[in-house]
Amino acid sequence: MAKHFADRMLDAIEAKQAPLCIGLDPMYERMPKQIREIAAHGRGALSEQAAAAREFCQSVIDIAVDHVPCVKLQSACFERCGITGLRAYYEVVDYAQEKGLLVIGDIKRADIGTTAQAYASAHLEEVLIGEGDAEHGVAVDAVTVNPYFGSDSVQPFIDLAKAGGQGVFVVVRTSNPSATEFQDIKDADGRRIFERVAEKVNDWANQPGCVGESGYSLVAAVAGATYPEDTKTLRDLMPNSLLLVPGVGAQGGTMEDASQAFHEDGWGGLVTVSRSVIYAWERPEYQHLGEVNWEDAIEVAVVDTKAALAEALARRAASAPQ
Amino acid sequence: MAKHFADRMLDAIEAKQAPLCIGLDPMYERMPKQIREIAAHGRGALSEQAAAAREFCQSVIDIAVDHVPCVKLQSACFERCGITGLRAYYEVVDYAQEKGLLVIGDIKRADIGTTAQAYASAHLEEVLIGEGDAEHGVAVDAVTVNPYFGSDSVQPFIDLAKAGGQGVFVVVRTSNPSATEFQDIKDADGRRIFERVAEKVNDWANQPGCVGESGYSLVAAVAGATYPEDTKTLRDLMPNSLLLVPGVGAQGGTMEDASQAFHEDGWGGLVTVSRSVIYAWERPEYQHLGEVNWEDAIEVAVVDTKAALAEALARRAASAPQ
Repeated sequence: MAKHFADRMLDAIEAKQAPLCIGLDPMYERMPKQIREIAAHGRGALSEQAAAAREFCQSVIDIAVDHVPCVKLQSACFERCGITGLRAYYEVVDYAQEKGLLVIGDIKRADIGTTAQAYASAHLEEVLIGEGDAEHGVAVDAVTVNPYFGSDSVQPFIDLAKAGGQGVFVVVRTSNPSATEFQDIKDADGRRIFERVAEKVNDWANQPGCVGESGYSLVAAVAGATYPEDTKTLRDLMPNSLLLVPGVGAQGGTMEDASQAFHEDGWGGLVTVSRSVIYAWERPEYQHLGEVNWEDAIEVAVVDTKAALAEALARRAASAPQ
Repeated sequence: MAKHFADRMLDAIEAKQAPLCIGLDPMYERMPKQIREIAAHGRGALSEQAAAAREFCQSVIDIAVDHVPCVKLQSACFERCGITGLRAYYEVVDYAQEKGLLVIGDIKRADIGTTAQAYASAHLEEVLIGEGDAEHGVAVDAVTVNPYFGSDSVQPFIDLAKAGGQGVFVVVRTSNPSATEFQDIKDADGRRIFERVAEKVNDWANQPGCVGESGYSLVAAVAGATYPEDTKTLRDLMPNSLLLVPGVGAQGGTMEDASQAFHEDGWGGLVTVSRSVIYAWERPEYQHLGEVNWEDAIEVAVVDTKAALAEALARRAASAPQ
């Protein structure tokens, strides 16, 4: 019996003293010149980009592993590189897990029940990588899913995740400007769609066998930091669900905003930062390090981000009612 | 300048005299024994399944090409086979297009704007397949997308599709039992979420440069046949959008239901059938043909389905107000 996902995540957060996830969104155009040059020996543009993505993500992982419990791979950035990109995706998942990191596959899939079974199997069961004697299976520790199709599209992911000690992050409140278009529509009672989705996620999260020893469920949620009042609402609506919080940094959310995803005991949230960290050398405050020292810039950004999150959580704890 | 997607689709429908799409959802366990045996020479379970999926889909395409204008590939069933599955996906897309069929990639992707750009690029731009001199690019003619993130998640697909003469089918009303959970929530004015999504799709569809000579937009929609009253509503809300209609057959929808997706002139709908056709030899009415004659069963099922759709459309035309 595989250990429960949420219990594993909480242990990992405690070990690294940081409820922080680094998002691996490798975009060829933004990777450091050195990486783009290292990779420029492939036979086609997409395979070169995939090689660059793998190199770059492995470097970020080498830095991240000392500071954070997990990484999140943005599937789109790997799919962008076609068949070679999918291979790079699994190689990076494998590399991160070898280093002891938990890995979230940010795939945001959804379809009707029978098809959702195929997606769940595709993304929660093992895929073979490597050649000959080195061939071995690899699977992510958790995935993200889209709720629009309702329960029968999510349940196959929950069922497989339960068997594999994995997690399912349901996208409830997204961090983008257009998030409000459909997610904020109010029902006749004034409740917004994302709140209705959150209530359903809470039902899914409390199914038999879904809650671990930590009190958290393998059914988790995505709650963007760019709408902090909503994040607080979501924390209340899904007390047993870990909340993965994107939107800090490049998208404009602050650590103060993100801290709303945590319970007052400082647990329950997992902030995920991508572009503001992995392309840190582009930021004014780190530009003095130079693109050639991009790894230093990333490490400083990870440390700074971790400290900023710790401070925001400390402020929140200090201001909590006694 | 690539020819407009909707114009190409209407031409193809006219040429084959059938607004019918065959859904390629290859599931290893359900494929005919011959195919499973042919494929059983690979080096691993998933690569065998991918080879079987390619063989099977190519056989279905050989049958379909005489009768229908397009096929829809269910991405999940290929992703299920890992890296070899993705290669099979593109090989099947290529094979279908070589035969003159339009191809819809049923990927149902969505994410925030910047990530949606990567997904759009991944699935609407060319991916290289083949080795050496045979290497060439392949891209689908249209994709399906999920609306939950709102406009900024859909626009990157529309922008790329416009440039490439491709189409974007927005999932509005799904055909599964749980579809109603979120899609049927009513707003304060009594309008349901899927109607609100449909109104937005109509806005997207009527952006400058999106409507072709046929009067239809490259922005289309998915409208499940299992809720026929809703299908009729959706037809009215998105007059310039082609409606792709799943849910007939295995899911319980009838051709009568599906006919609601068409305008009274008999245009505007595209019914898609998958399991009831590609696994036709399992159905009581075709079992006498035997699994060994699965190709005959598929062909008879395609012809029967085409006739049933034509009859439903004829009945609808006859009952329309003069």
